[in-house]
Amino acid sequence: MGFLGTVQTGIAYILAFLAPIAGIGGLFYANKIFRDFMTRPTGTDRMRDIALEIEKGAKAFLKAEYTYLAAFVLIVFLLILSSSSLGWQTGISFLLGALCSVAAGVSGMIAATRANVRTTASASENGSADALFVAFSGGAVMGLAVASLGLLGVGILNYMFGGDAATVKHITGFAMGASSIALFARVGGGIYTKAADVGSDLVGKVEASIPEDDPRNPGVIADNVGDNVGDVAGMGADIFESYVGGIIATMAIAATLPIEKIAELTNNFTPDGAETYRMALIGTPLALSLIGLISSLIGIKAMDKLKEADPSDALRKATIYAAAIFLGASLIFFLFSSVAVSVWMAVVSGCVAGVLIGLLTEHYTSGKPVTRIVEASKTGSATNIIGGLAVGFESVAAPLLGICAAILIANYFGGLYGIGIASVGMLATVGVTMSVDAYGPIADNAGGISEMSGLGPDVRKITDELDSLGNTTAAIGKGFAIGSAALTALALFSAFTQAVPEPISVSLTEPLVVVGLLIGAMLPAVIAAFTMTSVGRAAGDMVSEIRRQFKEIPGLLEGKEGVKGDTERCIEISTKAALREMIAPGVLAVVAPLIVGFGLGAEALGGMLAGALVSGVVLALFMANSGGAWDNAKKMIESGDVEGESKGSESHKAAVIGDTVGDPFKDTSGPSMNILVKLMSIVALVIAPMLV
Amino acid sequence: MGFLGTVQTGIAYILAFLAPIAGIGGLFYANKIFRDFMTRPTGTDRMRDIALEIEKGAKAFLKAEYTYLAAFVLIVFLLILSSSSLGWQTGISFLLGALCSVAAGVSGMIAATRANVRTTASASENGSADALFVAFSGGAVMGLAVASLGLLGVGILNYMFGGDAATVKHITGFAMGASSIALFARVGGGIYTKAADVGSDLVGKVEASIPEDDPRNPGVIADNVGDNVGDVAGMGADIFESYVGGIIATMAIAATLPIEKIAELTNNFTPDGAETYRMALIGTPLALSLIGLISSLIGIKAMDKLKEADPSDALRKATIYAAAIFLGASLIFFLFSSVAVSVWMAVVSGCVAGVLIGLLTEHYTSGKPVTRIVEASKTGSATNIIGGLAVGFESVAAPLLGICAAILIANYFGGLYGIGIASVGMLATVGVTMSVDAYGPIADNAGGISEMSGLGPDVRKITDELDSLGNTTAAIGKGFAIGSAALTALALFSAFTQAVPEPISVSLTEPLVVVGLLIGAMLPAVIAAFTMTSVGRAAGDMVSEIRRQFKEIPGLLEGKEGVKGDTERCIEISTKAALREMIAPGVLAVVAPLIVGFGLGAEALGGMLAGALVSGVVLALFMANSGGAWDNAKKMIESGDVEGESKGSESHKAAVIGDTVGDPFKDTSGPSMNILVKLMSIVALVIAPMLV
Repeated sequence: MGFLGTVQTGIAYILAFLAPIAGIGGLFYANKIFRDFMTRPTGTDRMRDIALEIEKGAKAFLKAEYTYLAAFVLIVFLLILSSSSLGWQTGISFLLGALCSVAAGVSGMIAATRANVRTTASASENGSADALFVAFSGGAVMGLAVASLGLLGVGILNYMFGGDAATVKHITGFAMGASSIALFARVGGGIYTKAADVGSDLVGKVEASIPEDDPRNPGVIADNVGDNVGDVAGMGADIFESYVGGIIATMAIAATLPIEKIAELTNNFTPDGAETYRMALIGTPLALSLIGLISSLIGIKAMDKLKEADPSDALRKATIYAAAIFLGASLIFFLFSSVAVSVWMAVVSGCVAGVLIGLLTEHYTSGKPVTRIVEASKTGSATNIIGGLAVGFESVAAPLLGICAAILIANYFGGLYGIGIASVGMLATVGVTMSVDAYGPIADNAGGISEMSGLGPDVRKITDELDSLGNTTAAIGKGFAIGSAALTALALFSAFTQAVPEPISVSLTEPLVVVGLLIGAMLPAVIAAFTMTSVGRAAGDMVSEIRRQFKEIPGLLEGKEGVKGDTERCIEISTKAALREMIAPGVLAVVAPLIVGFGLGAEALGGMLAGALVSGVVLALFMANSGGAWDNAKKMIESGDVEGESKGSESHKAAVIGDTVGDPFKDTSGPSMNILVKLMSIVALVIAPMLV
Repeated sequence: MGFLGTVQTGIAYILAFLAPIAGIGGLFYANKIFRDFMTRPTGTDRMRDIALEIEKGAKAFLKAEYTYLAAFVLIVFLLILSSSSLGWQTGISFLLGALCSVAAGVSGMIAATRANVRTTASASENGSADALFVAFSGGAVMGLAVASLGLLGVGILNYMFGGDAATVKHITGFAMGASSIALFARVGGGIYTKAADVGSDLVGKVEASIPEDDPRNPGVIADNVGDNVGDVAGMGADIFESYVGGIIATMAIAATLPIEKIAELTNNFTPDGAETYRMALIGTPLALSLIGLISSLIGIKAMDKLKEADPSDALRKATIYAAAIFLGASLIFFLFSSVAVSVWMAVVSGCVAGVLIGLLTEHYTSGKPVTRIVEASKTGSATNIIGGLAVGFESVAAPLLGICAAILIANYFGGLYGIGIASVGMLATVGVTMSVDAYGPIADNAGGISEMSGLGPDVRKITDELDSLGNTTAAIGKGFAIGSAALTALALFSAFTQAVPEPISVSLTEPLVVVGLLIGAMLPAVIAAFTMTSVGRAAGDMVSEIRRQFKEIPGLLEGKEGVKGDTERCIEISTKAALREMIAPGVLAVVAPLIVGFGLGAEALGGMLAGALVSGVVLALFMANSGGAWDNAKKMIESGDVEGESKGSESHKAAVIGDTVGDPFKDTSGPSMNILVKLMSIVALVIAPMLV
C-alpha cells in the first residue's frame, strides 16, 4: 500500500475519529444560535406569562417522564451488565445513547419554548421575515442538537472501542438506548398532545362554540405544551433514533462483511489489508454524517439571507442547498477515499428518496386529494371520513415505491452495505431537515400566544401564515420520519441477520418465519389500538375537567376580566394520562422481540422484524397522511377559498370531525409506528449474539 | 404391499375419484331443498311485487356483470392456450373453474331471492321457527352449491388428468378461474351494495328523516338487491375460491414433495411405491372435502329438528354438529388410509382455528368492544369513529395469533403439506358454514320486505330478530372468510415456491425479496383506496338521483297513495357504478403478479405474495371488525338497551355516521382483501413454471 493508498484507506477512518469534534462544534454553534435569539424582545407581560406557563408545563412533563424512564433505563442497564454475552461496553453505550437522546430532546424543547414567544414578538415588532427567522432559529437548535449529539455519542464510542469490527457489537447499545427513550417520548408525547388538543376542541370548539386557542378555555395551555412535548421533543427523539440507528446499522453491516464483499466495495484492495479496508467501510457512515452536519450548518447559516424571500421558499431552499452541498462534498469524499465511488450512488438514492417522500407527502396533505375531502364534506361527516381514509390508503403507494427504488439502487451499487449507506444519506443533513420540522410547532405556539394575548389582526395574520406553513413542514417531516425509519429498520434488520452466531437467511418457506411475519404485521395494529384508545380515554378525562371548570368557575365561559381557568389541572391530566398510557405499548415493543427471539428462534424473529416493518410503514403512511389531509381540508374551508363554505357551515362541521379523528392518527398512532419498527430491530440486533 | 397396504394406499385415491359423484349428490340435495321451500306461501301481492323487483334487479346485475366477465375469461383463456408452457388442460380447467363459480353464485342468488319473501310470509303465517327454517334453507342451497360444485369440478379434472403428480399443474387453472370470477363478483357486488346502502341512507335517514327500508325511498330496492349480489353471490364466490384454492394448493404441495417427506407422511412406506403414496397424499384433500360435504348434509338435515330451539342456538348447533362429525369421520379415514394419523392433527388445527376466529369475530362485533363504541358516541361522532377504529385495530391480534397457532401445529404434524391440509380442514364443512352465512342477507331482505309491504309489528318483530341474528352470522362469516383466505393463500404460496422450475427459498436477506414484500404490503392499501373511493363516488351519484326524485316526483316524499319512485333508475346507477369501478382493482390484482414475476423474478414475486398476505389479512380484519362493531353499536342504541339513549338522540346520530363509514369497510374494501391475496397467489402459481 503506497502513500496514496494509505491516505485513501485512512480518510474515512480519520473523519470518523473527527466526528466527536464536529459534534462538539455543532453544539457550540447551536448554543450560539440560542444565545442570539434569546436577546430578542419578548413582547408584553401577558405574552411572557403565557410563554412561561407553557415552558413550565413542558418541563414538568419531561421531568415526570424522565423520572419513569430513568428507572426503565436503569433496569435495562443492569440486565445488560448481567448478561454474559453483552458486557459492560454495551451497557455504557446504552446509557450514553439514552442520555444523548434526552439531552437532544430537552435542549430542543427549551429552545422551542423560548423561541415561540419571541416569534410572536418579532411578528408584532419587525414583521414576517424576522418572525420566520426566529422560529427557524428555535428549530435549528433542535436540529443541530440531534445531529451533533448523535455524531458526538457514536463518535466517542467508536474512538473508545477502536473503530474496528469488534467495536460495533458494543455500539449497538447506543442505538438501543436512544430507541428506548424515543419510544416513550413519542408515545407519551403523542398521547399528551392529542389528549389536550382533542379534549379542548371537543368542549371549546364544538360545545361552547369558542375559537381555537381562546384564553377562556383552560385546556389551551396544555394543548400548547403538547406541541412542545410531542412535536418537538418526541419528534426529535424519533429522528435522533433514525439518525444514529442508520449509522450504527451500517457500521454493523460493514463489521460482518465477507472479504470478497469488502473487495467489491473498495479500490486498490489487497487481501492482506482486508481488515484495514473494513475499518474504512466502518468509518464511512460517520464520515458521511460529519459532512452532512457541516452541510447543514451552511444551510442554516443561509437563512440569514433567505429569510427575506417567501417563507415557504426560504425553508425549501435552505433544505435543498444543504442537500446539494452534502451530495457534492460526499462525492469528493468518495473520490479520495478507498471506498468505491459507486457507493456514492447509494448515498444519492437515499437522499433523493427522502426529498421525494417529502414532496409526495406535501401532495397528499395539501394538494388535490385535500380538495376531494372538501368535496366529500359537503355530504356530511360520514363521507368526509370515508374520503380521508381513502386518501390515506392511496398515499401509501407512491412513497413505498420510492423506498423500493432506493433499496434497489442502493443494493445494486453496494449490496446490504449500500442499503445502510442509503439510510445514512437520507439522514445526513438531519441538522437542517429537523430544523425545518421543529419550526412547525414553534410557529403553531407563536400563533396560540398571539391569540391568547389578544394581539391585533395584523400580527395574527403573520403568525397564521407561518403556522399554516408549519403544518405543511410538519407533514413533510412526518413523511420523512417514516421513510427514514423504513430504511433504518431495514439496515438494522440486515445487520441483525448477519450478527447472529450463524448468519441466517430468513426464508419465507419456513413456517416459523411466516408465523414471525404474521406476528410482526399484527404488532403495529395493536400499538395503533393501544394509542388510539389512550387518546380517546385521556381526551375524555380532559373533556370532563373542562366542562367542570366552565360550570363551576363563575365568569370563565363569559370571559369576565380577571377570571382564569385552572390550567394547571388540565396540564396534570394530560401528564398523568401520557405517563400511564405510554407504558403498555413501550413494554410490548421491547418484550415482543425477546419473546419471539428466545421462544421461536432467530429466523422467526427475523420474520417478525420484516412483518412489523412492512405493516408498520403502511399504517404509518396511511395514518399520517389521512390525518394531515383532514387537517388541511378543514383549514381550506376555514380559509374561505371554497365557494359557499365558511367556518360554521355544515361542511365545516363535518371537516372538524375529520380533523379530530385525524389528530391521534397523525400525531400519536402514526408516529408510534416508526419507533416500534426501529426499536424492535435494535433490540433484535443487541440480543442477536445470544440467539440460536 | 399386502392386501391391507393396497386398501390403505387406495382409500384416499378411491374417495378422490368418488368426489364428483358426491358433488352431483350434493347438487341433487340442494335442488330438493330448493323445490321444498318453493312450495311455501309467498304472502300478499305487494310482497310478491317487491320480491320480484329485487329478483329482477339482481338478475339484471349478474347478467351485466357476467357479460363483462365472459370477455375477460375468454381473453385469459386464449392467453393460456397460446402459452407454450401451460397448454389446453390448464385452459379447460380455467374455464371450468370460472363456470363453476358462476353457477354457484347464480344458483345461490336465485335461491336467496326466492327465499326472502317466503321467510317473511312464514314469519307472518307460521311464526319464528318456521321463518328461520325457510331462511336457512335458502342459505343451504348456496352452501351446498359451493361445496358440491367445488368437489364436482376439481374431482372431474382430477379424474380426467389421472390423479398423479403431473395432473396438478393443470388443475391450478381451475382455482384461477374461480378466483377471477370471485374478485370481480366480490368487488363489483361490494360496490353495488354499498353505493345503494350508503346513498339511500344519506338521503333517506339523514336528510329526509324517513326510516330504513321505507318504501318511499326509491333507493331501497337497490339496497336489497345489493344484499343479494354482494353478500350472497359475492360472498359465495369468495368462499368457493378459498374452498377449491385450499384443495388445489394441497394437491400441488403433495405433487412436489420430496420422497423423504412422503415417507414421513405415510405409513408402511416402501421407496419403490413412492409415487403410489404420493397419489394417496394428492387424493387426501379431495377425500376430506367429500367427508366434509356429507357431514354438512347431516348438519343441514338436523335443522329440521333444531329449528324449534332458540334461532341463534340452532344455527350454532348445526355448524358444530357438522364439524364434530367431520372431525370424527376424518379420524376414521386417517386410521384406514396410508396417510399418517398425525396429519389428522393438521385437520383439527384448521377446523378449530376456523371456529375460534368466528367466536373472536363475534366478540369484537357484538361483545364488550361494542359497548365501548356506544360510550364513545356520547361525546360525538369524532370519538365514535376513533373508538371504532381502535376496536378494529385491536381485533387484529387474537385471530392472527389463532392462525399462527394453526400454522405451527399443522406444520409440526405435516410440514407444508400439513398447512395445506389445515386450510382444507377449515373449509371442509363449508356446506353448512356457508348456509349459515347466506342466511344473513336472506333474513335482512325478509325484514326489508315486511317493512316495505307494511306488515304488522308482530311480523316485524320476528323478522327483526332474525335479521339481527343474521348480522352476527354475517360478521362471523366474514371472520371465517378472512381466516380461510389466509390459510389458503399460505398454502398457495407454499405450492408456488415449489412449483417454479427450481424451488426457491424466498429469503428476506435478498433485497429483491424485501422490495417484493413492500410492494405486496402496499397493494391491499391501494385496493382499499380504490374501493372506498368507488363507494364514495357511486353513493354520491345515488344521493343526487334520490334527491332529484324527491324533488321532481310530486307526493313521493309525502307517501301519497299510488305514487312510486323510479327504483329502476337507482338500480341502474348501482349497476353501472359497480361495473365501472370493479375494473381497476380487478386488473391490478391480475397484472401485479405478472409484472413483478416477469420483471423482478420468482423470489421477488414470492416476497410480494407474502407481503400482500400479511398486510391484506391485517387490513381485512381491521376493516371487517370495525365495520361490524360500528353497525352493532348503532343497533344497540336503537334497541333502547342503552340508558338515556334512543333513535334520534345525539349519540344515535354519531353512531349512524360510524355505521355509514363502516359500510364500505366491512362490505366492500375489507372483503376485497381476501380475494386479492388469493387471486395473486393463484396467478403466481399458474405462471410459476414459466419463471426463472
